[in-house]
Parts: sequence; structure tokens; C-alpha cells
Amino acid sequence: MSSSEPTIRPLIGLTMGDPAGIGPEIIARCLADPDLSSVARLVVYGSGGPLTLAADRCGLRADWLRCDAAKATDRHPEDSPLVLDDSRFGDLIDLPAQPTATTGHASKAWVEAAIEDATRSVGDPRRLDAIVTAPISKQAWHRASYKWPGHTELLAHRARSKRVCMVFESPQLRVALATIHQPLMTIRDTLTIGRAFDPIDLGAQACRQLGIDQPRIAVCGLNPHAGEGGVLGHEEASIITPAIDMARNAGIAASGPYPADTIFRRAIGGEFDLVVAMYHDQGLIPLKLLGQSQAVNWTFGLPFIRTSPDHGTAFDIAGTGQANPSSLKAAIELAVRLARTQALTAHA
Amino acid sequence: MSSSEPTIRPLIGLTMGDPAGIGPEIIARCLADPDLSSVARLVVYGSGGPLTLAADRCGLRADWLRCDAAKATDRHPEDSPLVLDDSRFGDLIDLPAQPTATTGHASKAWVEAAIEDATRSVGDPRRLDAIVTAPISKQAWHRASYKWPGHTELLAHRARSKRVCMVFESPQLRVALATIHQPLMTIRDTLTIGRAFDPIDLGAQACRQLGIDQPRIAVCGLNPHAGEGGVLGHEEASIITPAIDMARNAGIAASGPYPADTIFRRAIGGEFDLVVAMYHDQGLIPLKLLGQSQAVNWTFGLPFIRTSPDHGTAFDIAGTGQANPSSLKAAIELAVRLARTQALTAHA
Repeated sequence: MSSSEPTIRPLIGLTMGDPAGIGPEIIARCLADPDLSSVARLVVYGSGGPLTLAADRCGLRADWLRCDAAKATDRHPEDSPLVLDDSRFGDLIDLPAQPTATTGHASKAWVEAAIEDATRSVGDPRRLDAIVTAPISKQAWHRASYKWPGHTELLAHRARSKRVCMVFESPQLRVALATIHQPLMTIRDTLTIGRAFDPIDLGAQACRQLGIDQPRIAVCGLNPHAGEGGVLGHEEASIITPAIDMARNAGIAASGPYPADTIFRRAIGGEFDLVVAMYHDQGLIPLKLLGQSQAVNWTFGLPFIRTSPDHGTAFDIAGTGQANPSSLKAAIELAVRLARTQALTAHA
Repeated sequence: MSSSEPTIRPLIGLTMGDPAGIGPEIIARCLADPDLSSVARLVVYGSGGPLTLAADRCGLRADWLRCDAAKATDRHPEDSPLVLDDSRFGDLIDLPAQPTATTGHASKAWVEAAIEDATRSVGDPRRLDAIVTAPISKQAWHRASYKWPGHTELLAHRARSKRVCMVFESPQLRVALATIHQPLMTIRDTLTIGRAFDPIDLGAQACRQLGIDQPRIAVCGLNPHAGEGGVLGHEEASIITPAIDMARNAGIAASGPYPADTIFRRAIGGEFDLVVAMYHDQGLIPLKLLGQSQAVNWTFGLPFIRTSPDHGTAFDIAGTGQANPSSLKAAIELAVRLARTQALTAHA
């Protein structure tokens, strides 16, 4: 595959996520979506039974090649999606819509299998160009006694990536987070200049991969009114401003710290390419308010491309055929775009 | 004035705010707005000079009655707005657009004068039905050596109100805050069950004043994913859930704690009448993102009605004639609506 070929169809691994959640449903819908099959070769890491059942419930043709995961071929078909059917956890059919140790074990094993294929040597036909993960249940992983709080931490550990950043893409807004899944009041103990610098630096690199050569980055304050000159908190002066200065010295067009209650409006107005938020809700409240089911989570800093939808397992609607595949579709499309950019760069 | 009269035109006091900010401009525009003069009698607490200048710059007729504040008449005209011109701080014309001790002293004095008139005995013709405050500069108050962090704290102190709640109204969303202007990391020291209960209880009362008999109230968690069952923080279990239980025992339809990153979308979809946020940015990020210049701040729990626009002094555009009066107009309209409801209730 060379850079002059107009139709690079990257090999994208889809992990099924918790089989009792909406994962099988949204994956079945994406496998049947001609927009996606025209731009990517899709391979599913999961269980064939729930996928076929989901397709039946959604009135879709199960138009894919099923193959025993333990005897996987080393060639992926060009013309249809491939489902690597893992039978180690039973048939997983008609599970109660709740987290269990079994679904925890299964969903973790599928992520591990995808990581293995994403880290194969260049030239191996089974090497994935990107991993797209359907939602797992943190509680199911907990019941299966896994200590990982989520995908991101497992992926970073397996890939030995020390600096990883969650970047969220939505049609109107792009956000990177300085801290993620931790109690709000513990930010006091973990937010350092380095932790504030990383999402600016990695976020700038991520923007460049999206074709934005000189990204304009707005950095949020931590406190109301960005501390109002120190009256409402010191972290802006002691942590965030030094991180912004470091980034500017490194040639990044970063500015702030800005009051978080007004900066997102300016960003969607076109003033900035990326907003760096200091904590989970600061970044995800505006993103999910505007996202309209099309927000995508991109883990930047891994040695392979990884994206995911921005929602959870949605046990409450699992099995009803109502799940919206838009966010997973957007995650696959972003993975394809990034894989193409990497392929072009590698061949340039 | 009796409850059967269809046209109660309440007496609304407008404080000018910092005279070097956009206050004079947005007030001049509201005084000239026939939508407002048809529903309210407006009286301005401020300085006549900057107001006339602002009207000139905006191409508006200075169509109001100017009267020396020190010799204020005890009758307000029915047919035109009244400007109580306070000359104690000089002419305040063409000030540099920045906070100074002088503008701090002036803007504070005007709030004090309005409080005096709002707390007059029933039947006094100078008694205000509501106060609407244009933005002051916290830095100007600081330079004038006032310790009040803002309007709300001064008003609550003067009115001896112990339980006061900031409620924000916008076309799509209504939000009440449990904590306001404090460094984020100090919430650990101040968020108690009582502090979480107050905005639920006062917010429910506020909704009832707006005609919502049994308001549906969503309460946010403090931590990401509302603590995810204790894995990401304990405040949901130890503080917020007990506060919600207290409210439910008191007959309030409160629920939660909900993850803050998805609850606002449900609220704008019509599922809730009010969202109670635990801290400033949690509530104001979605409000200002959606507000489109029409968000209003309502201080509930004072013995008089007080509303204000949701923006600041905007020194950067002061004096240019570009300031948008929409939020002040919405604040006046809300004050009129609340004053009418109170008048009807008092006469019922």
C-alpha cells in the first residue's frame, strides 16, 4: 500500500466491550454501514453469538466472516468484515444487562487480543492500524478483580506509555484533559506543572496529526473566574501559568488560564483549536452538551491509534435495538483518518 | 394597586454598577426600550453624566427625568424613567476603562442606596419592588477597601439573610449553586449536608415562585461519574445523598446525585426544572454555553427581589457602544415577573 494510492483502507480492530451492554448492537450496526466498509477493513474482537443476535434484533444481515479466534487466519478478507469469535467465555447469549465477572473477563481479554495485534511488527498482515473500543463496564472489571480503572490505563500500561492524554473530538469542540478519573478534591495532590503541561504539549501534537499546523490552544483555570488574580485560588499562578509558559517557550500557541465558564463559547466561535481542561467534568460538561452523540475519545500518546465512543455500556437499553451507533461510527471514522495520515507520513 | 389590575408596573431599581464599565451603556439602552417601560417603572441609582454620554454614543434620546439623589422626590413619575443622580464622586465622565477606588466607592454607594429603598416600609412610595444590579468590579471594590467579594454577599449581610442561593435562569436551563466564589479545592472544607441541602430547598421555593408547583430537581455529584459508586470520591455518599434524602423527606421531588457531564443535556431535554450544581463552574459552564446572552442571576432568599445580568463590567468594550443589553433586559423582565407574582400573592 503506497501513499499514492487514493484508497488506503486501514485495518481497524473493534473490541466488543461488555457483551451485556450495547457493544454488540452498535458494532453490528457499524459492520452493516457501507460508509464504514468503504473506507476501512473492520475486524471484531469479541463473541459471535451476541453479535448475530444483535443483528437479528436490529433487522440487519449478519454480513461478515466469522472465524474462530483461536485459529485466526493471518489474512483479513478485503470484502467483508471479520469477526474473531472467542468461545472461551461461553456463548454469552441473552445475558442479564448487568456487570458480571464473566463479562469483565471477556471484555478485558478482547482488549488484550487487540493490543497484541496492534503491536505486531510492521508488515505482519494481522497488524492493526488502529483499535476502536466499545464500552466496557468498570464494575465488571472490578468484579473480575482487574485493577484497571478503564481502557486508557490498561492500554498505557501495556504499551509502556508514560505520557498519555485523553483528547475528545466533537463536531464543535476539541478538548484535552489534564486529570481524568480521580476524586475532584484529590486534584490538589496530583496537579503539577508537568500534569498541566502534558495535555498542552500532547494536545498540540494531536492537533498537528489532524492537519492543524499551528494549533491555538486555550487553557482553563482550575478555580472560578480562573482564580480572579489570586483571590479565588492560587493554582493558576503556581501551576497553570508556568505550564503555559513552558508550552509557549516550546513554540506552542497556548494562552490562558481562562475562566472556564466563558472559554468554551469562544472556542466554538472559532477562536481556538483546542481547550485544555484541568479536570473531567470541566471538559466533558460542555463537550457532551454540544456533542449530540458524535463525540469521540482519542487516547493520544500510545504507540498505536486508539479511539472510542464517549458513552458507556448503557445497560438500561441494552438488547432493545435502540442504541445509537453515531459515536462509535465517529470513533471509527477518526481512527481511519488518523491511520491514513500515519500511512502517508510513513511513506513520505 | 390591586390584584385584579392587569397592569401592575412594579418599581424597579437599577444600580449602575461600575461607571467605567458597560453599566451606563446597557442601562441607557434598557431605559430606551419600550418593552421595559411598558411593564415597569425604572429608577436608576448612579450618575447622570455617564448615562447621558452613553445615550449619546449609542444614538439614543436621553428620555428620562434626572433628579438630584440627595433631594430625591418621594414620588416616582409614571411616564418616564427616573435617574437619581449622585454627584458625590465627581462627574465620572470619560473614565479610563479600568477599576479604581473611586468607581469602587461610587458603585458600592449606589447598591447601598437601592437596598435602603428596597427595605422601606410597605406603602412608602419610594419602596422598590426589586433591585436589578449592573456589574460592579470586584477589583474596584477591593481598591476601595471593601471586603465584600461581590453584590450577593453585601446584599445578604445588609438584609441579615443567612440562607441565600444563587439561581441562574436562561431560556433553556435553570441552575442553583451549592458553593459560589471560593477556590475549588476549598470545597472539601465547606461542602456540608446543609450547604448541599440549601440550594435544593431554596431552589424548589424559587421554582414555585415561577409557577412550577412541584419542581423536578436534579442534583449533580461532585466527582467525575458522580463518584462511580465510591471509586471516584466519597462526597456523593457522605454529603450529597443525605442532602437529597432530607429534601425528599420534606416533600421535594429531588433526585441524584447525577454525573454532571450528562445531566444538563437531560435537563434541557425537559426532564428537570432545576439542576443543583455543587460549584461555580459546574453550573456556569453549561449555562453560559447555552445562555446566548440571556442568562440572569437571581439571588433567592433575600427579603426583596434581586436579579442581575450574568456578565461582568467588560472594561474591554466599555464606551464603545457595542455592549449587549440582552442579559440586563432579561434580568429586569424576570424582576418584573417576580414582583407581579409577589403582588398577586400578597393580595390573594
